[in-house]
Amino acid sequence: MHATAALRRRPGRPPKRIDERLETREALIRCGTEVLTEKGFAATGIDEVLKRVGVPKGSFYHYFDSKEAFGRAVIDQYADYFARKLERSFGDSSRTPLERLQAFVDDACGGMARYQFRRGCLIGNLGQEMAVLPETYRARLEEVFEDWQARLAVCLRAARAAGEIAAQADCEALAAFFWIGGEGAVLRAKLARSEAPLRQFAAGFLAGLPR
Amino acid sequence: MHATAALRRRPGRPPKRIDERLETREALIRCGTEVLTEKGFAATGIDEVLKRVGVPKGSFYHYFDSKEAFGRAVIDQYADYFARKLERSFGDSSRTPLERLQAFVDDACGGMARYQFRRGCLIGNLGQEMAVLPETYRARLEEVFEDWQARLAVCLRAARAAGEIAAQADCEALAAFFWIGGEGAVLRAKLARSEAPLRQFAAGFLAGLPR
Repeated sequence: MHATAALRRRPGRPPKRIDERLETREALIRCGTEVLTEKGFAATGIDEVLKRVGVPKGSFYHYFDSKEAFGRAVIDQYADYFARKLERSFGDSSRTPLERLQAFVDDACGGMARYQFRRGCLIGNLGQEMAVLPETYRARLEEVFEDWQARLAVCLRAARAAGEIAAQADCEALAAFFWIGGEGAVLRAKLARSEAPLRQFAAGFLAGLPR
Repeated sequence: MHATAALRRRPGRPPKRIDERLETREALIRCGTEVLTEKGFAATGIDEVLKRVGVPKGSFYHYFDSKEAFGRAVIDQYADYFARKLERSFGDSSRTPLERLQAFVDDACGGMARYQFRRGCLIGNLGQEMAVLPETYRARLEEVFEDWQARLAVCLRAARAAGEIAAQADCEALAAFFWIGGEGAVLRAKLARSEAPLRQFAAGFLAGLPR
């Protein structure tokens, strides 16, 4: 996205400096998300993001206090986006709880296919790169995984209540297992440029659930 | 490791140019493995490896035809090392097949703890970075995963023959599932700086096996 687009004013509305600034800030976050999801932090850096959005290098600090703050904003934005995605899938009461999990997996496959399996999971990419990232990201990335885990645990408890999985199922442990392994599936889908690893992982997870 | 060490001649032995060259080549591969396992390709590059080994930038092509060839040599060396590790774990007839898998997981936990969970799996790191790597690496990385999968499938078939898992178990699918998810466990262990994700993944895998 270019700054020209980001800064384009809606017709009939007077320009507002504060609005323009917010829109450019959002464009930077959006582009940062795209680039970090595809290539990771080390392979890209902030310069490429600034160049792609058309923001001069010198004015970066008009939008963010630091590069670290920029990265945090990108993580926050991705976490919000993904939480909404999970809410949509896991909150769909027209399906049984396990069907909801399958629907989430279908959605994830579609999402990866849309970008030819070049883009993975921002949180997984950054986790892999922790050795070269600001140390403060570590706790934040863990927190995001814990949020996803808690949301899946709710869905699995619903599956247990509905009798889709066994009464003695440890829903928290199963949810943790899903997200630990799921990041591997995303990685392999990128490598194979195919949804097959995502499908294989989800099928293995469902087959292994206590019934 | 420094070139001075790599090139140091054993006492009483005349210097041999071909030996020195081979030793430096090996030192480059060893250092490349360390660095790529820790930080990945994009965050490091070849310059850091050359600097750490003490090889002048200009003489890199004395040792490798290209940077791509260097990366391939690092992958080959890691694949050999890991295949030997799997052979040792899965070939230990003093244990039952599933105990052998557990022993491999224990070994992997020890291996990650030894480097304070900073180093992950070279193949997983590179898989994650495929977007910025030579395209020829893709098939090679897949091939390495297939080798690991075949080795685990043999172990699981032995578990099936020994009655540790159900007669109808699909050992190939289970082995694929293990390595797909296992890379996620390594990623999370790096993030958490703890063996806990590796243990959780292995426990989840074992608990889900058909009995």
